[in-house]
Amino acid sequence: MITRMSSLFLRTLREDPADAEVPSHKLLVRAGYVRRVAPGMFSWLPLGYRVLRNIEKVVREEMDAIGGQEVHFPALLPREPYETTGRWTEYGDGLFRLKDRKKADYLLGPTHEELFTLMVKGEYGSYKDYPAVLYQIQNKYRDEARPRAGILRGREFVMKDSYSFDLDDEGLKRSYELHREAYIRIFDRLGLKYVVVSAVSGAMGGSASEEFLAESETGEDTFVRCLESGYAANVEAVTTPVPPARALEGLPAAQVHHTPKTPTIDTLVDFLNAAGLGREFTAADTLKNVMVKVRKPGDADWDLLAVGVPGDREVDFKRLEASVAPLEVALLEEADFKANAWLVKGYIGPKAIQDNGVRYLADPRIVTGTAWVTGADQADHHVIDLVAGRDFTPDGVIEAAEIREGDPSPDGAGALVAARGIEIGHIFQLGRKYADAFGLDALGPDGKPVRITMGSYGIGVSRAVAAVAEQHHDGRGLIWPREIAPADVHVVIAGKDETLREGGESLAAELDAQGVRVILDDRTASPGVKFADAELVGVPTIVVVGRGLANGVVEVKDRRTGEREDVPRDEVVAQLVALVRG
Amino acid sequence: MITRMSSLFLRTLREDPADAEVPSHKLLVRAGYVRRVAPGMFSWLPLGYRVLRNIEKVVREEMDAIGGQEVHFPALLPREPYETTGRWTEYGDGLFRLKDRKKADYLLGPTHEELFTLMVKGEYGSYKDYPAVLYQIQNKYRDEARPRAGILRGREFVMKDSYSFDLDDEGLKRSYELHREAYIRIFDRLGLKYVVVSAVSGAMGGSASEEFLAESETGEDTFVRCLESGYAANVEAVTTPVPPARALEGLPAAQVHHTPKTPTIDTLVDFLNAAGLGREFTAADTLKNVMVKVRKPGDADWDLLAVGVPGDREVDFKRLEASVAPLEVALLEEADFKANAWLVKGYIGPKAIQDNGVRYLADPRIVTGTAWVTGADQADHHVIDLVAGRDFTPDGVIEAAEIREGDPSPDGAGALVAARGIEIGHIFQLGRKYADAFGLDALGPDGKPVRITMGSYGIGVSRAVAAVAEQHHDGRGLIWPREIAPADVHVVIAGKDETLREGGESLAAELDAQGVRVILDDRTASPGVKFADAELVGVPTIVVVGRGLANGVVEVKDRRTGEREDVPRDEVVAQLVALVRG
Repeated sequence: MITRMSSLFLRTLREDPADAEVPSHKLLVRAGYVRRVAPGMFSWLPLGYRVLRNIEKVVREEMDAIGGQEVHFPALLPREPYETTGRWTEYGDGLFRLKDRKKADYLLGPTHEELFTLMVKGEYGSYKDYPAVLYQIQNKYRDEARPRAGILRGREFVMKDSYSFDLDDEGLKRSYELHREAYIRIFDRLGLKYVVVSAVSGAMGGSASEEFLAESETGEDTFVRCLESGYAANVEAVTTPVPPARALEGLPAAQVHHTPKTPTIDTLVDFLNAAGLGREFTAADTLKNVMVKVRKPGDADWDLLAVGVPGDREVDFKRLEASVAPLEVALLEEADFKANAWLVKGYIGPKAIQDNGVRYLADPRIVTGTAWVTGADQADHHVIDLVAGRDFTPDGVIEAAEIREGDPSPDGAGALVAARGIEIGHIFQLGRKYADAFGLDALGPDGKPVRITMGSYGIGVSRAVAAVAEQHHDGRGLIWPREIAPADVHVVIAGKDETLREGGESLAAELDAQGVRVILDDRTASPGVKFADAELVGVPTIVVVGRGLANGVVEVKDRRTGEREDVPRDEVVAQLVALVRG
Repeated sequence: MITRMSSLFLRTLREDPADAEVPSHKLLVRAGYVRRVAPGMFSWLPLGYRVLRNIEKVVREEMDAIGGQEVHFPALLPREPYETTGRWTEYGDGLFRLKDRKKADYLLGPTHEELFTLMVKGEYGSYKDYPAVLYQIQNKYRDEARPRAGILRGREFVMKDSYSFDLDDEGLKRSYELHREAYIRIFDRLGLKYVVVSAVSGAMGGSASEEFLAESETGEDTFVRCLESGYAANVEAVTTPVPPARALEGLPAAQVHHTPKTPTIDTLVDFLNAAGLGREFTAADTLKNVMVKVRKPGDADWDLLAVGVPGDREVDFKRLEASVAPLEVALLEEADFKANAWLVKGYIGPKAIQDNGVRYLADPRIVTGTAWVTGADQADHHVIDLVAGRDFTPDGVIEAAEIREGDPSPDGAGALVAARGIEIGHIFQLGRKYADAFGLDALGPDGKPVRITMGSYGIGVSRAVAAVAEQHHDGRGLIWPREIAPADVHVVIAGKDETLREGGESLAAELDAQGVRVILDDRTASPGVKFADAELVGVPTIVVVGRGLANGVVEVKDRRTGEREDVPRDEVVAQLVALVRG
């Protein structure tokens, strides 16, 4: 295939678009790969669509290799199945909803768990039918509050979603592991540098959910990693190493102190250190008790919940949410404090919490034998040397405190460092949630029904275009990995001389005859413009047909390394074919 | 690629689905190609999706071959461009409309003229940029009042839409002709039997719009054709041959007759033939004047219009609509008759029409010198021998009378016969409507702007799956043309004997190694079930590995002709490879 720049529907831009903040967005627009149609909605120009389809091809091949079978659902879907699972409501403003001419409710599918479950229920009946993996590559819709970063977070985007159907947990684990391996092959082939992070804490089921994050400073997802061991996890999934319990003997008794005007940790620590108590206090010696309220989704009433964390750490609301899920959690409002007059703001201690029948969960660091400065449940008073396991015993442990760089890795191998990434894949052991909702059973060998267990697996296909662009570019433009590049070789005719034109044309024709995908810059533009466009467009190999042709050579340039080499014209086709075929 | 029936996500049905009326719908459901999700919305199972993608591939190759460049727009689109062209309103209930979380208006694209025009305007500026052909293969949405016939008329469907952009009318004609040729190649490759029909009458610009109709008794589109010449046209596009004018001399003078109780053509003809006038009258001797009203879209007020047709023909409202377009047309209501008391129902004649300033358009057969029986503008009275060109002169000619089988073909080659078809393609010289709406100009060589002229070209890709199924099936199931079949060869292991299983497996493996796409029926089901499924699924070649294997032969069956042949096992791979590669 020869793509001629003279007729290619491509106009590159010298300037970054005004609304673009991240490199992939700037470059994909400047190089003429995508154009904005509306907030979070983009059209694909010819080169961009080629890259998208190349990525789809990789995804398809690897999904087929693990026995995935491709199907295709409508994007426009009836309300009923999503009503059955509650997602019609749960998605809130994130769902595009509409009515048809008969006023029936429809939605634009954000993911298709419901439809896949119903499809399998419609076709399969016996245990002999399982396992199965079905997938589709399709437009998905989410009405993001803040679409951003071009195609990194759009409102219409292309996703590969697959679903596994198994008879038992062991089968689900196999299907999950097959997907995990397929995803590794896919993202490796796309040339992405990525980490696989635990998406939920070990307490909730080990590796039941993992995310594939392309490493990128512009990513929206934060995660932590241990450089020594390779451990990586979402902040929500990090578990805090539990220090050993300490002996209670010999610890000083708890004492209540008058600590006027110390409603914050800082004022408290300053007061204590100025009080001449004979020792130095830090915020880490204090115990902060944060009041929240929780309820089951759908319930009207909330229950209070107290969360105790060392005073040098904030409660990370996302970690708290993940820990109490599936309960909903909210901060207290003024009315809640009024209704619970025993809550003395700034001076809340474990005693009043537990005396008032409120569940008290503590950070894993608050082990038996640790002594804390905490609220004494009356204004301007704190208690010192309140010892866990002696003076109070939390009702349980909770992962809610913020994770910081330098915190120990859960695997003990070193310290955690923070990083950012772009979520490009997510694999998830769904279990029986959807099978329960729709009654998806297989008739077992004994004639009894077996409830099917499912996995759900996604790849952001259009987002992967941007993720690759984030990782593969330089100051001059994009640098596509060969497997997904819009062409193999970009031939620049560097001059208006008829000999050069003929040289470029014949080279392109010879490459094309060998199955090499060529972009041929046959425009009348200046060599400088052509070179700049070639760098911007980012085909991995650039061949310049220029002055050297008189001496029988053309220049072959590696777009990534910038290395240039003069190659004899009569050898260059074989060399390029070898390069392209890898 | 080997697809194993033992794990293929396919369950065939022995019974026709209750809601299916046409063969393609019945068979595509029974053979496990599609499943209904909601009215007019279908999901594609693995074999169906393969056929769809095979058709997409053919379309893509032929579009690329005429220089088409593939792009891709969102399906969810902002209102503004469609407001600019008026289509936001004009589409009426046929458009799916919705609001996002910010209450901004969006629609699901029915076609993308607006967006393509804006895209070209965004990238191109100079006359040197043109011509261009852009296309996409994409989900389209139309909220059909009566979705029917499975995927033949769905509400979400796959369409190839392309648009040509040219500097002048000659260029547009070339782009149109290129599309016409590409469509012929595409539909030929799909194995479709089709006609290309004029979609608008010659008066409106010759071949400015043509439809490709797959011949099918179940098609929704009616057309007429001349078997002698191959002429074919939509009924709206047929022109009536104009008889020669006749001499006025010697014709009897017009006479008003008292014709009591003759408000219909039948009663009138009976009355006249019983009146002893010395000649025989037929309905074709009468002139029926039908009153309608017309207005420009957007106007509040209507104008009366009178349409005169020979009394043996009805007015075909679709032909009338096409003839007065872009005017809207409606039948008169009782209020209109009251407001125009001079209209004597059943006895309306040309005289009152024209005396009252109403435009009077007549069928082409009403030429100078023809004599008619028509209304005398008073109850129970008709005029006989009213001669066109002597006693009245219509204000113009109109194609509004129904077309009947046996009518002469406009090309004079023979008689017209009626037929039905499925619209699979439409090519249309749009002209400057959209370029005018968005100001799409190219800067000409003289520095002056040149308004671009456009063509619009569609192929119903998902509909083509059904159209092929309509034309290629028999009582036992589907019969796919090889190019788009879900596999090349369907290997049936006809027995549980281990030798047969091994024989089938090795044959499939050898074929796969040669690039042949194989479905291997490796199930434990009975040979009868397997044969029935193979016929239903419709892969063009079925190979039965059965008892003959002991004698070194397998049976090769042509699904279409039913011809069977025993082929030596050691020759069959080469023979099948040759067959598949054509």
